[in-house]
Amino acid sequence: MSHVSDIETLSRMAYEQLEIDANRIVQLIEVQMDNLTMPQCPVYEEVLDTQMFGLSKEINFAVRLGLVDKDRGKEILEHLEKEVSKVHDAYYKHKEKNRV
Amino acid sequence: MSHVSDIETLSRMAYEQLEIDANRIVQLIEVQMDNLTMPQCPVYEEVLDTQMFGLSKEINFAVRLGLVDKDRGKEILEHLEKEVSKVHDAYYKHKEKNRV
Repeated sequence: MSHVSDIETLSRMAYEQLEIDANRIVQLIEVQMDNLTMPQCPVYEEVLDTQMFGLSKEINFAVRLGLVDKDRGKEILEHLEKEVSKVHDAYYKHKEKNRV
Repeated sequence: MSHVSDIETLSRMAYEQLEIDANRIVQLIEVQMDNLTMPQCPVYEEVLDTQMFGLSKEINFAVRLGLVDKDRGKEILEHLEKEVSKVHDAYYKHKEKNRV
């Protein structure tokens, strides 16, 4: 193995791990919604904020090591925010439908 | 540069960055104490918990990439906890002394 492919492997692993963690956050939010913790609830906000903070720390760490590109790191966070919004919207639509 | 030294360099960088972040947390706690936010205050607890959570996320991430040894990662967190305790103790001793 050349040294380039090793660092490349590590970089790819870094992206993979960040994706896994981002997906875990989406799942956590879904579980919270399913268990009827309302998004207006401070606990929900806190969980989301803390998880986003944790992921941003990981991304920042990977960027500092040169394993993850700064802009791509930002994109991971932005993508996660969009996914969380989708979960919100699905929750509200479901609530709306069941109100009849 | 051999591939080993590259991964070794990255691993050393990972430890350095974790140390920097742990020191930043100690400094943040010191600043909070200096600004008279009491350690009994929930805001203080929350800041400390969130920061510890962030650092543990970074450590876990580095461990998963094989850059940081699991036990040494734990030691970084334990060392930080001890440093934070020292800051607490210094604060209380100072308070005690000025009570006369």
